[in-house]
Amino acid sequence: MKRVYNFSAGPAVLPEPVLKKVQGELLNYQETGMSVMELSHRSAPFQNIIEEAQSLLRELLSIPDDYHVVFMQGGASLQFSMIPLNLLGSDQEADYVLTGSWSKKAVKEAEKVGNARTLLPHEKFEIPAYTPEDFSPQSSYVHITSNNTIEGTRYHKWPETGGIPLIADMSSHILSEKIDVSSFGMIYAGAQKNLGPSGVTVAIIHDSLVGQASNTCPTMLNYETYVKHDSLFNTPPTFSIYVLKLVLEWVKENGGVEGMQADNERKAGLLYNCIDQSSLFHNPVPEKNRSLMNIPFSTRDEELDARFLKEAKAEGFEFLKGHRSVGGMRASLYNAMPLEGVEALVGFMKKFESEQGGV
Amino acid sequence: MKRVYNFSAGPAVLPEPVLKKVQGELLNYQETGMSVMELSHRSAPFQNIIEEAQSLLRELLSIPDDYHVVFMQGGASLQFSMIPLNLLGSDQEADYVLTGSWSKKAVKEAEKVGNARTLLPHEKFEIPAYTPEDFSPQSSYVHITSNNTIEGTRYHKWPETGGIPLIADMSSHILSEKIDVSSFGMIYAGAQKNLGPSGVTVAIIHDSLVGQASNTCPTMLNYETYVKHDSLFNTPPTFSIYVLKLVLEWVKENGGVEGMQADNERKAGLLYNCIDQSSLFHNPVPEKNRSLMNIPFSTRDEELDARFLKEAKAEGFEFLKGHRSVGGMRASLYNAMPLEGVEALVGFMKKFESEQGGV
Repeated sequence: MKRVYNFSAGPAVLPEPVLKKVQGELLNYQETGMSVMELSHRSAPFQNIIEEAQSLLRELLSIPDDYHVVFMQGGASLQFSMIPLNLLGSDQEADYVLTGSWSKKAVKEAEKVGNARTLLPHEKFEIPAYTPEDFSPQSSYVHITSNNTIEGTRYHKWPETGGIPLIADMSSHILSEKIDVSSFGMIYAGAQKNLGPSGVTVAIIHDSLVGQASNTCPTMLNYETYVKHDSLFNTPPTFSIYVLKLVLEWVKENGGVEGMQADNERKAGLLYNCIDQSSLFHNPVPEKNRSLMNIPFSTRDEELDARFLKEAKAEGFEFLKGHRSVGGMRASLYNAMPLEGVEALVGFMKKFESEQGGV
Repeated sequence: MKRVYNFSAGPAVLPEPVLKKVQGELLNYQETGMSVMELSHRSAPFQNIIEEAQSLLRELLSIPDDYHVVFMQGGASLQFSMIPLNLLGSDQEADYVLTGSWSKKAVKEAEKVGNARTLLPHEKFEIPAYTPEDFSPQSSYVHITSNNTIEGTRYHKWPETGGIPLIADMSSHILSEKIDVSSFGMIYAGAQKNLGPSGVTVAIIHDSLVGQASNTCPTMLNYETYVKHDSLFNTPPTFSIYVLKLVLEWVKENGGVEGMQADNERKAGLLYNCIDQSSLFHNPVPEKNRSLMNIPFSTRDEELDARFLKEAKAEGFEFLKGHRSVGGMRASLYNAMPLEGVEALVGFMKKFESEQGGV
């Protein structure tokens, strides 16, 4: 059976060469006579894996030396609590920009810890251009979701915070386009979209934000624990970190972040063009806010959407169903989605449209 | 290259048939055309995996219906915080029995939350037989480490708590011998010793202990979140849960917990006999407290220990170095360690001893 085209929002498609490498060495990692899953996290072969993963990420994103790279567990959802527990005193405040479902989950956890101010754009698919006047000068940080997986929006310009540390949940588009890490106090991402399998969370944290947690903060929720112990305070998710390292190698071999960005612009361009030129399919996002990674679309007819999804699945296009809060379809075009997958999808959409008798 | 014998304390050896199955279906899980790592956690194939994992664990441990089985991240180290955050009010108390390094880490996190009383045995390798008089009648729970990975000790009889819920960290011996789940309020275990790869933590929690957390408890640290959402509130560590499910199938096919226990008693018996009959090797643990899983031993001569470790590694016996706090050697004989591995180790130890000229 051939591999399908997997448009899942996450866990998502992985590069086929990475999967083949994992398969090839599954019972004997680099002549150790063991599976990588069986390696002690204190062993030299695993130490090499985690160090290489860190140094590849530093290289690919040109991470400055005054930022730490750490590997954690719990996904972005645990970060929603870790951020305020590390950086928000009970008498302090922080600003949360609510551009989508995930930002709303983030602020809920911050409200348990301190004063979380919320900034809510007027429209569901809007990403305003924020300036320092929008934020409280007392804020410990400003939190954004830089790409909204469900809504299919992204920032075209980072908020200007006037020196307040900017913290971004980049789970659904890290490594998809060039970013200047020094614009941020902290960047974090669950791996299961653009970095690897689920089970590992990456954070890039400026040194000034480490060591701020109170002494009642759980050890496993304190960023300092991960920084001090090189992410090896306790047993890390070793296999997920190993696959993440292989994905980073694949990104490097395929032109780095610049190469990914060029491919992603081409892939997303193909699909947006198809939608915009169609009289059947529609994307709800204003052009300047459109995500390169997650593209919702629909026929604005629930029955027709359902027929499209059914026929698409039969043709080997998997996980195209949109999130229930937006409806219709959603194609996630992460780094590992090959151009052929998008070409095939666009071909299928045109065929489907023509079969509707030019509706 | 043949597979080595891996005596790591964790991440540890996995059953070879499980690894072969993972390898065989790595690029195409059950004719889905995708890797199991690429499956959406909301998809039917993954739902089946997590449901089967839960039902297999229920079957293998005869878990009563009024207990929940949940899958989390963060290892036992995160449980050290979750337990008091769920079950210990700031004005309440709990009892912690400190039989080893891991219990000490557990109580440190509880002290951040409420009043944690500590019970410290007089000797490092002692496991006292506790009775209700040993505990405070006001305690919310009694916490034990039922098998001490570093010290090589285990309880031969559970503490009698007089009705106070007993919570046990069973990370290093879950599924190694029969237990009566109804003796406990909660059992938890990091997977990377007897259950699967690192990255997933299992808990078995009595219904009465769920829903006790305060409303400031982080959502991801609240057991209710996992119970209410069947461990799918956010993206779980899908691959680790998949391998765990395969390990549980392997346990079932190999006689269940009873079969594992018989094998473990035979394997541990071989090694303890070898040590006890030797005039070179020594195990520090009183016989009644000995672990079936983690067996520390030494020649009581650091140089000789180092030579043993070097020669053992050259013969394909990996990760036999003891923990620095105990020294010498440690052989971890988890369920997946084949009998042949222990026989080969014992053969090697006898040969090494005879080469020392009958020291």
